[in-house]
Amino acid sequence: MRRKEFDLTENRQETEAFLKEMTYGFLGTIRPDGWPSVIPLNYVYYLDAVYFHGSKIGEKMSAIATEPRVTFTVSQQFAIIPSYATDPELACPASTYFKSVVIRGYARIVEDLEEKAAALEAFMRKLQPEGGYKKIRADVPAYVQRLKGVAVVRIDIESLTAKFKFGQNLTEDKRTSVLSLLADRNLPLDEETARLMRKYCPHAGGSPGDNAWDRQAGNRT
Amino acid sequence: MRRKEFDLTENRQETEAFLKEMTYGFLGTIRPDGWPSVIPLNYVYYLDAVYFHGSKIGEKMSAIATEPRVTFTVSQQFAIIPSYATDPELACPASTYFKSVVIRGYARIVEDLEEKAAALEAFMRKLQPEGGYKKIRADVPAYVQRLKGVAVVRIDIESLTAKFKFGQNLTEDKRTSVLSLLADRNLPLDEETARLMRKYCPHAGGSPGDNAWDRQAGNRT
Repeated sequence: MRRKEFDLTENRQETEAFLKEMTYGFLGTIRPDGWPSVIPLNYVYYLDAVYFHGSKIGEKMSAIATEPRVTFTVSQQFAIIPSYATDPELACPASTYFKSVVIRGYARIVEDLEEKAAALEAFMRKLQPEGGYKKIRADVPAYVQRLKGVAVVRIDIESLTAKFKFGQNLTEDKRTSVLSLLADRNLPLDEETARLMRKYCPHAGGSPGDNAWDRQAGNRT
Repeated sequence: MRRKEFDLTENRQETEAFLKEMTYGFLGTIRPDGWPSVIPLNYVYYLDAVYFHGSKIGEKMSAIATEPRVTFTVSQQFAIIPSYATDPELACPASTYFKSVVIRGYARIVEDLEEKAAALEAFMRKLQPEGGYKKIRADVPAYVQRLKGVAVVRIDIESLTAKFKFGQNLTEDKRTSVLSLLADRNLPLDEETARLMRKYCPHAGGSPGDNAWDRQAGNRT
């Protein structure tokens, strides 16, 4: 069920920043035998598309060749919120906060060497920003055969939805309790989670039950 | 392409330990409209099956109702290995080390309240091992309506494959270079990555080009 209070789909700045910061995602395809597949891979978000590379033979390529419709999901888990942060008795309020972006699109196998080189260079700049390699270009002899031998895939984005869940549905009292627990517990992701709770719940002065979504709408880019 | 040197499928102890340690995975389904979907979710591996829960209405349930074949992938990324660790010039050897387990199975919606309660209790023990909630049982009045209202899904595992990539394909010289880089760089995941490189490449005294797979075979459980 889509919960509108967690929806950041229309906040392009936030969703693109997340796609640029994360290094891996999960590619969903439909295999020739009819089963869904989910493959983790490194990617780069470049020129409004998702690019990844791999072997020319194998599961990804055979699936894409027969069914170009794919889903690519990038998700990061933040703090696990225990039930007792907001309920002294029942387990039900236990939750996990996260960011996730789900992209649906068409996977296209890139044949043009210039585009392959540019995508792989963008990929390297992302994963190895400190450099230390000869820049990837289609006219560098050492790379030509390698560029021909590797498969590069571009996902042309058909739709993108983003969900960032950071307690936007909580009443003010419960939000305060969660923030207090995070400050006391202080596990590695807790401080960043608290910062994001404050960022995405700008109704700090609001009354309990206030709808974060309506309050946030004016802040979207 | 399946690289046998990274394959840990037959090491049940390692794969189960990984499934028990990780808290979230990615569910791949085929939607009624024919698109693949990839949904991140928390899960518990319990009694040789994967269990997750969610709303009775929504994307997951409608997909499973029409197509019970699903894939569930759990993956953790470790160190990013820069190309210059093993090649002074070319970008190609840049890599990422990771563990991943891919499960194919049939998703079954659990209706039995006892099984629902047991699965959710196992889920809570995993994500909130410190306790602080009333134990979930089908005969606890406060939980009965809630158990009826939540959807619990069990994935009956049809096949499981595991791939742990920690440089098992490297020659001894290159493996030494990577270990040296990780020790110098010392980013948060580097020490653990080096430990796992040593663990999964038990041919430390072997000659360059030695096949880690053959050497490891005798160590599998």
